[in-house]
Amino acid sequence: MTEQMPALTLEGRVDGTFVVETAAVESTERPELVLTYAGIVGDRHEGLVRPSNAREPWYPRGTPMRNERQLSIVSAEELAEVAAALNLERILGQWVGANLVISGIPHLTQLPPRSLMMFPSGATLRIDGDNDPCRKTGKTIAAQHEGRSDLEFGFVKAAMGKRGLVGWVEREGAIRVGDAVRVRTWRQVAYPGQPLLST
Amino acid sequence: MTEQMPALTLEGRVDGTFVVETAAVESTERPELVLTYAGIVGDRHEGLVRPSNAREPWYPRGTPMRNERQLSIVSAEELAEVAAALNLERILGQWVGANLVISGIPHLTQLPPRSLMMFPSGATLRIDGDNDPCRKTGKTIAAQHEGRSDLEFGFVKAAMGKRGLVGWVEREGAIRVGDAVRVRTWRQVAYPGQPLLST
Repeated sequence: MTEQMPALTLEGRVDGTFVVETAAVESTERPELVLTYAGIVGDRHEGLVRPSNAREPWYPRGTPMRNERQLSIVSAEELAEVAAALNLERILGQWVGANLVISGIPHLTQLPPRSLMMFPSGATLRIDGDNDPCRKTGKTIAAQHEGRSDLEFGFVKAAMGKRGLVGWVEREGAIRVGDAVRVRTWRQVAYPGQPLLST
Repeated sequence: MTEQMPALTLEGRVDGTFVVETAAVESTERPELVLTYAGIVGDRHEGLVRPSNAREPWYPRGTPMRNERQLSIVSAEELAEVAAALNLERILGQWVGANLVISGIPHLTQLPPRSLMMFPSGATLRIDGDNDPCRKTGKTIAAQHEGRSDLEFGFVKAAMGKRGLVGWVEREGAIRVGDAVRVRTWRQVAYPGQPLLST
């Protein structure tokens, strides 16, 4: 027996667009992002190729590899849930180095790899998959809140499964604040070689 | 509740390596494939960018898009199952335009999008997802078997879920016949927005 789920189309909205300009985690708000096949023009993660890092322990660090992590995409609703769990008023997309904050897509972080995000300009992103929360981002949020050094580790725990997605540019174009976004998933099939677990 | 399956590592073997040289479906055997970020050197599907086609009905046909279909990867075991279902002695990887025939990976076509295939040279492929069988391939197989015009449609039906995968080059290198291949899947999560169906 194969467990499978049908393809799905969803609609959301772009609440914020941001560029990472420095080696720090944070991103800076912009009214518009210009996308080429290399990613966001002017973003620190722009490139067709990137050096591997601790996320790819199967490669020697610094190995050249195709850049599947051109953009970081987070959910407004998930960020609010993480903030609530940490007893914070809010967490801004900028603090977690997001390029896009999107609202209206339930469980954004669980969108399957290969999903498409289409924007009115014709720009399309293809989703590589979910992003894992890291201590560096926790530390950045802690630095915003005096007396809350607990946030460095607390963020990693609270943001598990809610840290958004990474992906790459499938079609060039622009993304603007206020844009509608159409998400298309593919039929999802549970790989039979792996047991189904409940969490 | 979230249905999820753990990451998995699998080992298989490269049984055949092929290049598509013409506009026809068929591929030609080669002892070695040389991979760059654009795909297989000399293959018809080589390119960082490709024009969209009938597989992407959401784009006007011919729209430039990043080429996520650089390689076609099929399973020796699945090809044998399709052949048996069609009462054929065998189906060669060449007939279906495969670039790689791999053995030893159960349910190859169901490997989740984002899976990695690593080869001894250091070459790595990232899987976009499963490939859908088409009539054009069925017709190519029918042309090999006199009196079996039924194979044009029969292949499409028999090969559903067994037509292999498409993907792109994450790390450059060579792939040779006889190579071991290590497959790494990611933790797979059922998107909660979609109902689980049994098939």
